[in-house]
Parts: sequence; structure tokens; C-alpha cells
Amino acid sequence: MRTRPLKVALLGCGVVGSEVARIMTTHADDLAARIGAPVELAGVAVRRPSKVREGIPAELVTTDATALVKRGDIDVVVEVIGGIEPARSLITTAFEYGASVVSANKALLAQDGAALHAAAEDHDADLYYEAAVAGAIPLIRPLRESLAGDKVNRVLGIVNGTTNFILDKMDSTGAGYQEALDEATALGYAEADPTADVEGFDAAAKAAILAGIAFHTRVRLDDVYREGMTEVTAADFASAKEMGCTIKLLAICERAEDGASVTARVHPAMIPLTHPLASVRGAYNAVFVESDASGQLMFYGPGAGGAPTASAVLGDLVAVCRNRLNGATGPGESAYAALPVSGMGDVVTRYHISLDVADKPGVLAQVATVFAEHGVSIDTVRQQGKDGEASLVVVTHRASDAALSGTVEALRKLDTVRGVASIMRVEGE
Amino acid sequence: MRTRPLKVALLGCGVVGSEVARIMTTHADDLAARIGAPVELAGVAVRRPSKVREGIPAELVTTDATALVKRGDIDVVVEVIGGIEPARSLITTAFEYGASVVSANKALLAQDGAALHAAAEDHDADLYYEAAVAGAIPLIRPLRESLAGDKVNRVLGIVNGTTNFILDKMDSTGAGYQEALDEATALGYAEADPTADVEGFDAAAKAAILAGIAFHTRVRLDDVYREGMTEVTAADFASAKEMGCTIKLLAICERAEDGASVTARVHPAMIPLTHPLASVRGAYNAVFVESDASGQLMFYGPGAGGAPTASAVLGDLVAVCRNRLNGATGPGESAYAALPVSGMGDVVTRYHISLDVADKPGVLAQVATVFAEHGVSIDTVRQQGKDGEASLVVVTHRASDAALSGTVEALRKLDTVRGVASIMRVEGE
Repeated sequence: MRTRPLKVALLGCGVVGSEVARIMTTHADDLAARIGAPVELAGVAVRRPSKVREGIPAELVTTDATALVKRGDIDVVVEVIGGIEPARSLITTAFEYGASVVSANKALLAQDGAALHAAAEDHDADLYYEAAVAGAIPLIRPLRESLAGDKVNRVLGIVNGTTNFILDKMDSTGAGYQEALDEATALGYAEADPTADVEGFDAAAKAAILAGIAFHTRVRLDDVYREGMTEVTAADFASAKEMGCTIKLLAICERAEDGASVTARVHPAMIPLTHPLASVRGAYNAVFVESDASGQLMFYGPGAGGAPTASAVLGDLVAVCRNRLNGATGPGESAYAALPVSGMGDVVTRYHISLDVADKPGVLAQVATVFAEHGVSIDTVRQQGKDGEASLVVVTHRASDAALSGTVEALRKLDTVRGVASIMRVEGE
Repeated sequence: MRTRPLKVALLGCGVVGSEVARIMTTHADDLAARIGAPVELAGVAVRRPSKVREGIPAELVTTDATALVKRGDIDVVVEVIGGIEPARSLITTAFEYGASVVSANKALLAQDGAALHAAAEDHDADLYYEAAVAGAIPLIRPLRESLAGDKVNRVLGIVNGTTNFILDKMDSTGAGYQEALDEATALGYAEADPTADVEGFDAAAKAAILAGIAFHTRVRLDDVYREGMTEVTAADFASAKEMGCTIKLLAICERAEDGASVTARVHPAMIPLTHPLASVRGAYNAVFVESDASGQLMFYGPGAGGAPTASAVLGDLVAVCRNRLNGATGPGESAYAALPVSGMGDVVTRYHISLDVADKPGVLAQVATVFAEHGVSIDTVRQQGKDGEASLVVVTHRASDAALSGTVEALRKLDTVRGVASIMRVEGE
């Protein structure tokens, strides 16, 4: 074994960073044996130097992250600050100064992955980020390496623990969105400002990353259709139950049936209770990957939290250190397929639509005609009427989002349709 | 991209090999883009050259596997022959002649993994074998790389599709073992001689491989306790149902609670219906991995079959080719921890025991005394009596296998105990 240690600069020492530092210290011998050389925590960049950090020698702590990265003797920079800046500049500087980078930064990778990969390649360095998607669950590496000889057609998953906790709570207790969110906040599953989670921004970033790797195509954050889950109601869960379904916030990356384009989207959807994703509880994550040869694979585990995310970071750290000792780099960006990324209109799926309608004869015929005119085939219709009010619940066969949107627009214009109570996609069938 | 192709020798062209050859041909452009150089199928060694193999040019086919491996221009040997010989000699020769090896051979890896890894290392070559365990499911790579910075404590899984199909059939239809086996055979899920599957040899080989990687310790096939599932009866399933359980053939690799030793075992066990492994149907495989930092991860997918296994082989092929272009090798054997492998007596778990007893007062007291004398704590007891015959069903708290064996031996000596109808471990709680 090499005795000269590999030097690691840790940027950020919050929930994840402090776990990374802790494990690097307590498991130093194991890491050295697995890498083939000791790893040394050479510096820790923080915002608040006064905070006591157990197990981290005070002399390693600095507020000057840039100077740490520019020291020139750093082998690997571990970035667990999050957000776009200063993380982006620090990572770019790290490459310029000869270091490889391990990051957990989904927002940055989704936005600037291509540029960062190019910078890594220019400097013969590695950029690894298993922790950016689905916490401890090995997903980036299996997609990028294990399935490198296969053709991935679909990635479908629960990649945000906060929203899954909220939806699971709504499902199991009948609570409304706000009540479930309050509980998630109280228990620390939701942040004070939950926007990034509940509006689907976090999941959309992960979808962009996963789609890019799965389809060997650059998928930008803007390419991902995004719909949050703040509008999901207890009534939606009741409708879902009637269909033998539950509701999950899903990230879905798909190759079109003709293989010529791909889509990526995040939205709440009904999925059958018999689907394995339906039983993913609490803050857990799970991702289905469907490929030509492998068939359906599922990956399940804790999608967030300090220790699980640190596990993913350290796995990458070991890999990057091994590469460095080998004088080699691991697989970089693979975007050779360069498939066009289609918009939501081209997505084909099934829909569950609840309409408030007048309770009089002929309404169903009118509604059915509108669906037919837009080429959307109806699977089932259920009519419920009372006191002159009635509701129609329509479940469609597979149709394009564009056709469904046109249908809904036309339905809204019907005198007999008083309102569209909800539209929800049905996935996983 | 490099234009000179990497040359691949394929040893074996059965269900898996023909899929590997097919995908190498139909997806040649994708593989080249992902590797950074074209890969060329340089030769295919088969036993029966007369068999027509669609898509494989006749001039590539040979019966002389040794000559193919010794050609001197082969970059990667893909071994999908199975069995110990001639696979072992061919792999060893491949290393001597400068090639890296991708293998799907669980029996060989479990028996001679250490020697083969050493041979690979001696010749600066790679030995990859994702396909040897759980077909298409990425498991070796996540354990070896993604969890390289974590401490794995337990691997618990269904790693044999044939037996899972049979047990699932028994569970869902009430069929007996033979009837379910006959159906599995008719459907092609079981081989004409099902011994390797139903007696647990196949699963034991996989357990040895998984334990070795998970614990960074050499675990030989002989170290794995093995019990097949041919004795599982419809009555066992009825007992399991009463406990809210089902029965699965499990491979379990565990670190002892004090961390100082490890065990590996394969046997049928009851697991709660609420455990995710309980809902693994048909010939699917699923493996739980529990680690210090990552918590519980699950990997699920098709555990066998030509295309899924080929997916795993090709993922390895891409990785090995990339390493070759990089002039590097991937992670080799990691056995530095060298933990002692304990026997079954040291395994601690719960037990479900059915006793046929005399239907008279005092029997329960006698039986309970025997358990107490051996330090095995009873969780629940259920007594059923009719016509002078009675049964006692005892479920224990966690106890060592040695203590349980001692208890059962003593129970058999009691006059009031007419027989021990079944003993089954209870896992996954």
C-alpha cells in the first residue's frame, strides 16, 4: 500500500459533510485498505467557524473555501455545500488545480452538468455524484456502468423523500396537504421553505440527471416538465382508492416508442397499489429502471439524510481515489446519443379526470363525443348524481398529453360541464 | 475514438452467450460510443459447431476454446460456459495471454475466486462477474464500489429464481413441493435435474461471493451453511400464514453483533408478509443490503434468463474495455479484513417449531422447561389438541443455532414429545 496519503478537501460541514468527516476519521483504516492508500482530511471549509464540530481538529477548519481548493496539494474535493454558487466556482477551480471532485449537488449537476463534465475532462479529473440522486441508493453507478451494455427505455421513481412522506401521510390518515406538510416540517422531513420539494424542483433536477445518464443525451433542467404536489387533495386520494391506486410524486424519464426522442417529467400520478412503488413508505425513495435486456430493475433505500448521503459520497470518494492511484479516470459524461428531448405534449400516458357536470340526460354522450373528437379513447366512465349535481369520472386509455389537453379545453367549453375537478395521470401499469 | 477494435472471445454460446453475441452485433455502435473504441467479436467457442447460430458468422465459431484464448490478440474473454472445468483453465490461460475476463460463473467464483483474482492481479488484468449473482440486478458493483466507503452488516436476499418460483407457487396455490416443481420444470424455470437449485447449492455459491465482497473477507463455498427447500410442505405454509408470514429460500450473510466474525447461510425461512422480500414473485430475485451509513437498500429484478444475464455481462464488458483503454484495472479482490467465518452454531435468529405431543396436562410445562434450560426464550406458544393427540407451536426469541439444536435434541428425548414436525427459522423482522 502507498503510504503517502491522498488529500481530501471537504467543502461544507452540515448534515452530510459532518458525517463524511466522521466516517473518514472513524473508518480511516478500512478506507485506506480499500483504496490502497490512506486518505487524509486536509481541510474543511465552513461558513460558521465558531460552531463546534466534534471530531474535526480546529486547525483543519477554514472559511476560505477558495484558498483550500487552490492549495495545490488536494487530490479530491468533496462538495456538499449545495446550491449553484459558490459550489460551481469552487468545483471549476478544483479541476484547474488538479483535483477530482465528488459532489452531492443535484441542482448544480442538473443545471451545469455538461460544463462541469467538460471541465473535468479538460483536466483529466473525475466528477462523481452518486449522492446527488436518491441519497444512499446506488443509481448513478448502476445506470452509468452496470447498464452500460443495455438500452434503458424508462426510469420511473420516487426520488424525493419529503413529498413521499407527505403523500404517504395523506394516504394513510386521510389528512389534507397542509396538515401532512405541517407534520413533515415538525418531524424535520420538510424544510422551513418546502418549495423545492413540494413544487417538484428537487425531483426535476434528479430527473434531468437520470435522463441524461440513462439516454446518453444531455437533458437540461428546463427540458423537464414539472408539476408539484401542492394541489393534491384528500378527494384525489379517495378517487385513487376507488381505482385501486395511490398517489405518488413521480420522476419519469422515457424513451419514445419509436426510440427517436426522450422525455423527462415530474408530477403527481396515480399508480396501482400492486405496483412496488405504491408500497414505498415515508421518506424512502425507490426507482424502477426498464431496459431492453435487463427487464425491470428496482432500487430502493433511504433517499436523504446525513449518513445515507455520506455513504454515497464515500463510495465515490473511494472510486475517485482508486482512479487517481491508477492514473486513470472513470467514465465521464456520455451524451453521444444526443436524442431530441420532447416536451410534455408528446408524452403518452393514461388519465383520470373528474368532471362536475349537470345532472341531466345526454351529458355523458356530449362528454364522450369530445373525447372521441380529440382521439382520446375512454377506458371507463363512472357517473354519480345527486340533487341536480353530478360528477363524471373518466379514465382514458393511453393518449398524448397534447390530445388530453385539447380534450380538457373543449370540455371546459361545454355548458353541461360545470368544472374540471381534477386531472391526474395514471402510471405504472 | 480509437478505431482499432478491442477483441472479444466468447466462450459458450448457450442461452446467455447467444444473447451476448446478439447484443454485441446489434448494438455495436452504442457499445463503441460508450467504450471509446469498437468491440469486435473475434471468436466464439462452442461444443456443438453444427448448431445454427443466428447472427454469428460461421467462421467465428470454433470448438477449440483453448486455441481461441491463446490467440494472443484477445483483449477480453467472456466466459459463459459455467461449471468448474474447462472454465477455470480457460480463464487462467486468458490471464496468462494478457486478456481480461468477464464471467457469469458463480460456481467457479465461489470455489476458486481467490485464486482467479490472484491470477488476474498477477497479469494486471480484470476479473468481473456481475452476472454471477442475481442475473441482471446490479449487486456486485454496488457492493464493491458504491458501498466501498460504508460498513455492510447484512446481506439478505432471494438469489435463486427457480426455488422462488416453486415456493411462490406453493404459497399462492397450496400445492405441494413436487407439484410446484413439476410446474416449474414444465415452464422451463427448473432444469431436468433441479438439485443445484432446490438443494441450495446455487444460492450457496452466490452467498459465498456476496459475503466475500460485503465483508472484505474470503468466504469459501464450504463456509456457507446450506439447507435446501425440498422438505418445505404445504403445512409449513399454513403455519407461516398463521404467523402472518410466508416462506422464502434466503441467502443470508451477516456480520456478528460484536463485528468480529461473519456467517453465510442458505435455508428456507419464514419472513413477515410486510417484509418487501415477501412480495417477490415468480422467478424474480431481490436482495437487501444493510450498512452502517446507508441503512437498508434493496435491489430487485430478474435473477436469471438469457437477456438479463447478458445485460450484466455486457455492463462488465464495457467496464473492462474502458479500463483497458485507460491502461488501468478496476477494483480486484478485497479480502483485507480477513474476518473469521463462523459456523451455523453461532448464528442468532428466531425459530418456529412444531411439536407433536401427548394431549395431557403438564406437557407445556415440560417443554417450556427444556427451552429454559438451554437458554432459549419463548416468544409465543400455541397448543392445539384433539383425540388424545396435540400439537405445540413454539416461536422463540432470538437464540443461537447451537442453543436451539440443543433444545430440539432434548425435546426429542421427552416421553411426551412424539415428534418434531418442523423447525423453521424466522427472518426479516
